[in-house]
Amino acid sequence: MRPGRFITLEGGEGAGKTTLARTLAARLSAAGLPVLRTREPGGAPGAELLRGLLLDGDIVWDPVAEAMLMFAARREHLAKTIRPALEAGIWVVCDRFADSTLAYQCHGHGLDRAVWDGLMGVALGDFAPDLTLVLDLPPEAGMARALGRGAPDRFERLGAAFHARVHAGFQAIAAAEPGRCAVLDATQPPAPLAAAAAAILRDRLGAPL
Amino acid sequence: MRPGRFITLEGGEGAGKTTLARTLAARLSAAGLPVLRTREPGGAPGAELLRGLLLDGDIVWDPVAEAMLMFAARREHLAKTIRPALEAGIWVVCDRFADSTLAYQCHGHGLDRAVWDGLMGVALGDFAPDLTLVLDLPPEAGMARALGRGAPDRFERLGAAFHARVHAGFQAIAAAEPGRCAVLDATQPPAPLAAAAAAILRDRLGAPL
Repeated sequence: MRPGRFITLEGGEGAGKTTLARTLAARLSAAGLPVLRTREPGGAPGAELLRGLLLDGDIVWDPVAEAMLMFAARREHLAKTIRPALEAGIWVVCDRFADSTLAYQCHGHGLDRAVWDGLMGVALGDFAPDLTLVLDLPPEAGMARALGRGAPDRFERLGAAFHARVHAGFQAIAAAEPGRCAVLDATQPPAPLAAAAAAILRDRLGAPL
Repeated sequence: MRPGRFITLEGGEGAGKTTLARTLAARLSAAGLPVLRTREPGGAPGAELLRGLLLDGDIVWDPVAEAMLMFAARREHLAKTIRPALEAGIWVVCDRFADSTLAYQCHGHGLDRAVWDGLMGVALGDFAPDLTLVLDLPPEAGMARALGRGAPDRFERLGAAFHARVHAGFQAIAAAEPGRCAVLDATQPPAPLAAAAAAILRDRLGAPL
């Protein structure tokens, strides 16, 4: 096993991933562990350039090309940031990873699952998170939270049916890999949500929390 | 068969691909056919943005991420430019395509062939050129020509052993797919080279040249 641990946070808009990532990173750090908090798309200089093309650019990408760019950014993030950190014994907490592409592009937008499988093999090989926390929130509640915090980005404008498919996608991902994934009830306030997440890190990864 | 024909030009630096593409496009056009001349990486607005990241940017990409970006650009080029043109009955002449990634990244730089195979499946499916003209030139001659025309780009700075591997790669590609590929002696001056290429287009694709 690699010296560090790789923990990903997944879920729909407004589920509280960013807040939980910050809290978990702070608690791991307070416990004396070296911690890196990162996010996708992005997390390395080249991957951040691709994030700009994907989220802020003027191009409406072909759906397969878009998935390829997301996985190119993920490969760059893995090679330049995540893997070196893990090998140095650092715990990495990542806001979104490959499950988000499966939930949004495949479950949400109908991209062929075989595209995702093919890109997983090319970009990640047998690399996978040690633990994935899936923040489960009814999509209406998540959208209300996301809209309440300001201008919606392109994902947040896609409507209720889309977000219901994404939500079902995350549930299916968690059900298919119970050894890697743990589902958290994200309707909870931040403090009990963080306590529940910390208990899972303690139980599954031996984190001193 | 699609209404248009897709012709790719492949080969090392300085082999004369760009000049030949221009001449063939002009001859097809003079024969009354609608023709589009394009090139890779690039050929669509999103693909041109990726070309800038690949050729002119400051990032030294992870080799797998770099190949993924090339194929993402290729998919965008195919979806937005090549396929719509072919379906409209346009003949497309393209300066470099997927064979260049195989020759440069795999044969030249040692990237795992399985990465190329995986990306081919994701990006192109069963799409392939109707004809690929492989311009064969001893690498020393090609490098001398490329250096003679101005500042060498990143490919042109890679040295003789690299270009010898790329040259052998293009020979292997042509040998493996003789039905799609035709090898042209690129030591010839431009006019007889173009005449030889036109004869192949006439024989293999029925072009009225």
